[in-house]
Amino acid sequence: MDSNGVDMKLVEGTAGYVLEDVPHLSDYIHDLPTYPNPLQSNAAYSVVRQYFVHEDDTVMEKIVVHKDSPRGTHFRRAGPRQKVYFKPADVRACIVTCGGLCPGLNTVIREIVCGLHFMYGVTEVIGVDCGFRGFYSKNTVTLTPKVVSDIHKRGGTILGTSRGGHDTSKIVDNIQDREINQVYIIGGDGTQKGASAIYKEIRRRGLKVAVAGIPKTIDNDIPVIDKSFGFDTAVEEAQRAINAAHVEATSVENGIGLVKLMGRYSGFIAMYATLASRDVDCCLIPESPFYLEGKGGLYEFIEKHLRENGHMVIVIAEGAGQDLVAESIEQQDASGNKLLKDVGLWMSLKIREHFAKQRKMEITLKYIDPTYMIRAIPANASDNVYSTLLAQSAVHGAMAGYTGFISGLVNGRHTYIPLNRITEKQNKVVITDRMWARMLSSTNQPSFMNPPQGTTEATE
Amino acid sequence: MDSNGVDMKLVEGTAGYVLEDVPHLSDYIHDLPTYPNPLQSNAAYSVVRQYFVHEDDTVMEKIVVHKDSPRGTHFRRAGPRQKVYFKPADVRACIVTCGGLCPGLNTVIREIVCGLHFMYGVTEVIGVDCGFRGFYSKNTVTLTPKVVSDIHKRGGTILGTSRGGHDTSKIVDNIQDREINQVYIIGGDGTQKGASAIYKEIRRRGLKVAVAGIPKTIDNDIPVIDKSFGFDTAVEEAQRAINAAHVEATSVENGIGLVKLMGRYSGFIAMYATLASRDVDCCLIPESPFYLEGKGGLYEFIEKHLRENGHMVIVIAEGAGQDLVAESIEQQDASGNKLLKDVGLWMSLKIREHFAKQRKMEITLKYIDPTYMIRAIPANASDNVYSTLLAQSAVHGAMAGYTGFISGLVNGRHTYIPLNRITEKQNKVVITDRMWARMLSSTNQPSFMNPPQGTTEATE
Amino acid sequence: MDSNGVDMKLVEGTAGYVLEDVPHLSDYIHDLPTYPNPLQSNAAYSVVRQYFVHEDDTVMEKIVVHKDSPRGTHFRRAGPRQKVYFKPADVRACIVTCGGLCPGLNTVIREIVCGLHFMYGVTEVIGVDCGFRGFYSKNTVTLTPKVVSDIHKRGGTILGTSRGGHDTSKIVDNIQDREINQVYIIGGDGTQKGASAIYKEIRRRGLKVAVAGIPKTIDNDIPVIDKSFGFDTAVEEAQRAINAAHVEATSVENGIGLVKLMGRYSGFIAMYATLASRDVDCCLIPESPFYLEGKGGLYEFIEKHLRENGHMVIVIAEGAGQDLVAESIEQQDASGNKLLKDVGLWMSLKIREHFAKQRKMEITLKYIDPTYMIRAIPANASDNVYSTLLAQSAVHGAMAGYTGFISGLVNGRHTYIPLNRITEKQNKVVITDRMWARMLSSTNQPSFMNPPQGTTEATE
Amino acid sequence: MDSNGVDMKLVEGTAGYVLEDVPHLSDYIHDLPTYPNPLQSNAAYSVVRQYFVHEDDTVMEKIVVHKDSPRGTHFRRAGPRQKVYFKPADVRACIVTCGGLCPGLNTVIREIVCGLHFMYGVTEVIGVDCGFRGFYSKNTVTLTPKVVSDIHKRGGTILGTSRGGHDTSKIVDNIQDREINQVYIIGGDGTQKGASAIYKEIRRRGLKVAVAGIPKTIDNDIPVIDKSFGFDTAVEEAQRAINAAHVEATSVENGIGLVKLMGRYSGFIAMYATLASRDVDCCLIPESPFYLEGKGGLYEFIEKHLRENGHMVIVIAEGAGQDLVAESIEQQDASGNKLLKDVGLWMSLKIREHFAKQRKMEITLKYIDPTYMIRAIPANASDNVYSTLLAQSAVHGAMAGYTGFISGLVNGRHTYIPLNRITEKQNKVVITDRMWARMLSSTNQPSFMNPPQGTTEATE
Repeated sequence: MDSNGVDMKLVEGTAGYVLEDVPHLSDYIHDLPTYPNPLQSNAAYSVVRQYFVHEDDTVMEKIVVHKDSPRGTHFRRAGPRQKVYFKPADVRACIVTCGGLCPGLNTVIREIVCGLHFMYGVTEVIGVDCGFRGFYSKNTVTLTPKVVSDIHKRGGTILGTSRGGHDTSKIVDNIQDREINQVYIIGGDGTQKGASAIYKEIRRRGLKVAVAGIPKTIDNDIPVIDKSFGFDTAVEEAQRAINAAHVEATSVENGIGLVKLMGRYSGFIAMYATLASRDVDCCLIPESPFYLEGKGGLYEFIEKHLRENGHMVIVIAEGAGQDLVAESIEQQDASGNKLLKDVGLWMSLKIREHFAKQRKMEITLKYIDPTYMIRAIPANASDNVYSTLLAQSAVHGAMAGYTGFISGLVNGRHTYIPLNRITEKQNKVVITDRMWARMLSSTNQPSFMNPPQGTTEATE
Repeated sequence: MDSNGVDMKLVEGTAGYVLEDVPHLSDYIHDLPTYPNPLQSNAAYSVVRQYFVHEDDTVMEKIVVHKDSPRGTHFRRAGPRQKVYFKPADVRACIVTCGGLCPGLNTVIREIVCGLHFMYGVTEVIGVDCGFRGFYSKNTVTLTPKVVSDIHKRGGTILGTSRGGHDTSKIVDNIQDREINQVYIIGGDGTQKGASAIYKEIRRRGLKVAVAGIPKTIDNDIPVIDKSFGFDTAVEEAQRAINAAHVEATSVENGIGLVKLMGRYSGFIAMYATLASRDVDCCLIPESPFYLEGKGGLYEFIEKHLRENGHMVIVIAEGAGQDLVAESIEQQDASGNKLLKDVGLWMSLKIREHFAKQRKMEITLKYIDPTYMIRAIPANASDNVYSTLLAQSAVHGAMAGYTGFISGLVNGRHTYIPLNRITEKQNKVVITDRMWARMLSSTNQPSFMNPPQGTTEATE
Repeated sequence: MDSNGVDMKLVEGTAGYVLEDVPHLSDYIHDLPTYPNPLQSNAAYSVVRQYFVHEDDTVMEKIVVHKDSPRGTHFRRAGPRQKVYFKPADVRACIVTCGGLCPGLNTVIREIVCGLHFMYGVTEVIGVDCGFRGFYSKNTVTLTPKVVSDIHKRGGTILGTSRGGHDTSKIVDNIQDREINQVYIIGGDGTQKGASAIYKEIRRRGLKVAVAGIPKTIDNDIPVIDKSFGFDTAVEEAQRAINAAHVEATSVENGIGLVKLMGRYSGFIAMYATLASRDVDCCLIPESPFYLEGKGGLYEFIEKHLRENGHMVIVIAEGAGQDLVAESIEQQDASGNKLLKDVGLWMSLKIREHFAKQRKMEITLKYIDPTYMIRAIPANASDNVYSTLLAQSAVHGAMAGYTGFISGLVNGRHTYIPLNRITEKQNKVVITDRMWARMLSSTNQPSFMNPPQGTTEATE
Repeated sequence: MDSNGVDMKLVEGTAGYVLEDVPHLSDYIHDLPTYPNPLQSNAAYSVVRQYFVHEDDTVMEKIVVHKDSPRGTHFRRAGPRQKVYFKPADVRACIVTCGGLCPGLNTVIREIVCGLHFMYGVTEVIGVDCGFRGFYSKNTVTLTPKVVSDIHKRGGTILGTSRGGHDTSKIVDNIQDREINQVYIIGGDGTQKGASAIYKEIRRRGLKVAVAGIPKTIDNDIPVIDKSFGFDTAVEEAQRAINAAHVEATSVENGIGLVKLMGRYSGFIAMYATLASRDVDCCLIPESPFYLEGKGGLYEFIEKHLRENGHMVIVIAEGAGQDLVAESIEQQDASGNKLLKDVGLWMSLKIREHFAKQRKMEITLKYIDPTYMIRAIPANASDNVYSTLLAQSAVHGAMAGYTGFISGLVNGRHTYIPLNRITEKQNKVVITDRMWARMLSSTNQPSFMNPPQGTTEATE
């Protein structure tokens, strides 16, 4: 049983092999009829010999092994099956997007629609308006290949999105009322928890409705999967802000360019953007605490770096230093202070105040927050291909009767992962790992490991 | 006499013709020797018949005329003269950049260096470090064609820049000490006032030193000239932020995208970016006052627009609504409020507070400030060519003995304009003019002409 | 009388002033009623005092003058008039695009539609399909603000285009049949000759139909006007190809990067792209003949340049060296030789053959033809604003009853120019002018002025 | 023994585990001293607990498994080892780049230099000039962190490159003469065959010289590894050409946009660019033969598609249809025909000729060859990070005494792969695989499986 009280489907094999399987409609509905996969007669696929995924194909999670390692966890391989559990003419699918914008959302929408249509002949696909709350509204969007034809070239989501608004029971009522039998839910951590609740309620009611999640998080904070769609595009676009910060910093004496990047709980974008750019001198992320004052603190590092180099670029993830921000703000109370919850604005003020007070060095700090310029761009080519395949996998999975799963890339292979596996914890930068060491090595920043005793703003 | 007490050089002609001429070294130093222009034996120019500018060529300022209009003001045409007042081997030039970053700065630097070198055989060019204050420092940069070869592909200024720090007397002492005889000053309004003071002091001391200004202002707020270099690039890059705001706004219910663009005293960037984009629903600039509350106010317009369209993009120039900001801030006093001096942050807070308080409509506002991402990019092709020609004109002018002038484009022709003409007032968007009407017509925003009596935040 | 037998409308004034006026419907239809301009009651324009163009406003053509110069040619200033000659409800407009693609076409289409709609309340606008030949086809496109709302962000023309297919009489028949009374024709040189013929036939038949041209030529080869829309965008995009050629050339020993740019009869794009880039070592354009072999020829220059620098970038306009190509091809006859009519392919072959035959130097030549990648991009911000104003001017002109005119920028002011003025000759790079000298000076290429006697491939 | 007569190092484990290990200097030189890895005292790495790779870590090749599958082939995991086989002060490394340009080359060079310098304290690194032949030349480039600091932002290779010129014996002589003990070879298939020969000769001579390859191929045609660096960037940039082709095609009647993309032996770029773009109607690659005439041929498909859609985009990989090209050309013999070896030019001619001859349909074809514009751009962020890690892995491997290996990504993990494994065959698009089916499904192109008998141009 997982922590949510649903039995995990575990299958064991030789040499320590374990399959963490995903639920299937036939787990709780008996005697479901099956149909031959329409792809069998699709001209495009007739040349492809081994098109259908073998029933037993699974993908290994842990692939750095020793010669006697146990084989460990595996996931079910994604892809089309010989048999499907829905007659195409009976399918009535819906798509919903939740949470913040992320490059690739429109591509995922497009490819669910086109995949259902061209691969399976499914013609009824509706779009739910503006997130989960759209399930309670009367308006939906009819999605056809023509409607979605060019949307992958645009940023944002044509369906609209929102945060929260989840009421499992009302949503499932609505699904029943509309006679929807495939639900595609695109969203992050919280959204997939909602998807999980929807799946459980559907199962409880014994409905023949497949629930498929496509994990979306620009921050890359979803566990198990290799990376989330849109992440590559975000890192690419972040370069533009870092370049600007670098130019600003190098064009004045003691210039500091400060860039805030996305990452509420995990600093992947900040870390990868830093590694890709090579112009960053300090990268601060939620996973690695830091402190400002005293020996080994940030101010000291900035001062030292400016003396030696004359300029500096700092990248800060939006979730970094939240303890410091909280401490700072609670001491004050004014309308403008709302703005200080933004760690970038807060830090730009703190650094300016420190050097103004200290009077040893005149600095010029330029603060750049490219967040919404990054989120809103269309997916790059790599994320377009990736989003396409995620969407197609989700469609193959739902048609094959799987449910309560997300479609995700594991070690470069498309798989179906049980929903609970990705909602139980977050993916975070492991600061005892090599990638973080690489980054530290590229910036030469301090480790902030030994905060001085008794400083007011130390992290613990 | 102009307002600074220097005689204007005015020449009159037929039908109301007036030439506002620029000063010349020979105005105050007599019997200066002249030399044949080295371009006469330059292979590249040998094919060009009419290469040298005719002594009497002038450029008309006012070209929309009636059939009996007087001819009005003219400026001296820029370009190489048959005779020069410096022997190339004797020239010792310096270049200084002041004020904020602007695309094209490096191109101007490059082309002064290359122009002096390749056209005139001048080899001694030094770069002054970080603005006017660099005149007092010992460090200078030796500028050669090799050093500047690729700099036009980079944003910022390789010389560094700063604001203020102007001490006329110390600067001219330093010019004398270093035996500099051509001073190229790249900067905005305030910087050119400094250039003017330097020119007058040099003239007072009777030095054979030519002072040439190249006006720089990303805001396009310099009068007389057609436009300032970097402006095109800035408008182009601003599109990126507006696009993002549009995507963010259209992806949620009642979404507002708010973009702050440069323009402390004039709203040209905001106006042109709005005209170029067509995705903007309201454009606020310093020249056109507005008010927030009550009938005909901004809040009312936002609410109405959201009800009709569901989303909205607002562009605000950094100098817009300063009266409202000032009034707002003085009522409070806290560290975070420093941030509110930024009209973009201030307005994002005000709009959110208004709709939260009013409780009729739930909005989602995303604020984008692309300022430093715009300033820091390299010049686009059009600004590269423009910056090149401005720099070459300045070089031709200084070599020909003109001084106290800026190099500027007037009605598409390169001219020499007396320094005082561009420091006396600022170029502003004329809101009783057609371009502003065009913009209003494209956004359909209110004119904010009739603020209700007695509102706390009305503009007057 | 102009060369086409139509009377020029000339108005003279003081000091040598001449106005080359454009035709007006009232020139050949008497007692036409007029109506107040609907803009008078437009909210957006109510703040603008001097919105309507004064009847006598004209724009000077020649603005580099001496103090006693005669005032010379002027054109009628573009813009809205107090009175219009069409009742908005009666207007039935059509738009046609002809010739090659050019960035900004869709913006012009968009703004004619939106200008007619929002400024004048005109609702009937149709798009003619695929150029002049579309007049004979039954299909047209209904153009509304909604249809054209986003098209300025796309390259190409939504109306489709074609070359030729002009039959004046059939076109005017069709205009009569469809009861069209405003014809907007977007196209180059040849297209505007067609427009002129249409105007004359309409005048001959005494129809109340206004014919307005918007000159389109990516090559900038239209005379009188400052520049054509799309030109800036083309020069910008050309940088990308030149950069690539530069990287390719510098990454190998004796590397040559050869880039062909647009310009059948005039080398403006090649010249400006060269000036903007600074990475080009030789720029060949139609206006400046060159020869390959012998002393002072291109091969010699290449060899010398490679010995000194190790690499080289050559830009060639598509119309350059046509005499050499013609001579080369007529000696042979084979299917593959069709490809050699492309001067870029021809030259890449010739240079490779020369160095292979000569055996002194092993070269690596990479040829890049970015033509269609340049033509097909959307207009940049600057061209978007420019295209917008051209379209609005055309609309104001047609509404005011002017006909047989093009809307064009002269010395930075929007004007109406008689059609014949721009079809009589082409705008060309004047190689005895300073801009060409600037370019020669930046590349240090030979002038190719003295072809050796008796060489087989000399230009004359 | 592999096919080149060198013993493979195979290690077996439980459940079918096999490790294909890489050679080590200690395999043929006995009693080599070892040193502690300097990273142990590096501040940046002190926080990282598990920084050093465990001696037994290996990476699985085949990860789609059944529950009883044998474990199969594994490769040694890349990364730093506790002990190194070179004293940093003794290391003298050289870097050489061979073959065509590829985005990321400069990043790899940069990171070998910086990795050696900052991680291991190695200061002697030289760059070999212009490929293998540079080993015979006297000139080399001294590479320091300062020299390479910004090169990752530029396309091409700062070292220069060339094809061929490989003479194993002379190269190894030169390596001995210069006392080089680490050789980093960046290049494709053929280059790595050269690397293999160099390694064997070095081993034969018993030299303590580590040979590390970094596979480079923009075409992604190297087997075993997940993908080659630069591939992502190439696919991204290819979108630009496809977009242009799409705009050109849709702007005229019966418009065809033809784009040639890289891929001499494998069509990965063409296939991924097609999948990412969604605007392509036919994608032709070397792995999938096609024919032009008759039923089921390309001409028929084009004609049908144009009738239905009015326009069409075709992408062709440079190596596609080589049999047809060869047949076509040998029938003729003329200078211009050299150009026809380029399949893009050849096909553009064939299609135009076909429709001209056939006279049923007037087409307009625009041909775009973006090859050199793609190769020459800098790496995008994703390829920058990837190239960085490849380079660092190679450095760790060489320092640890491994030799005759390439650094490559296998299932998302960095590994050391024996040189022979990647030179024995090429990676190709498997047209009986799902990715190709996905692409066929997205284009709806024919399978070209049944060429009509007796057609002159059928593939066989």
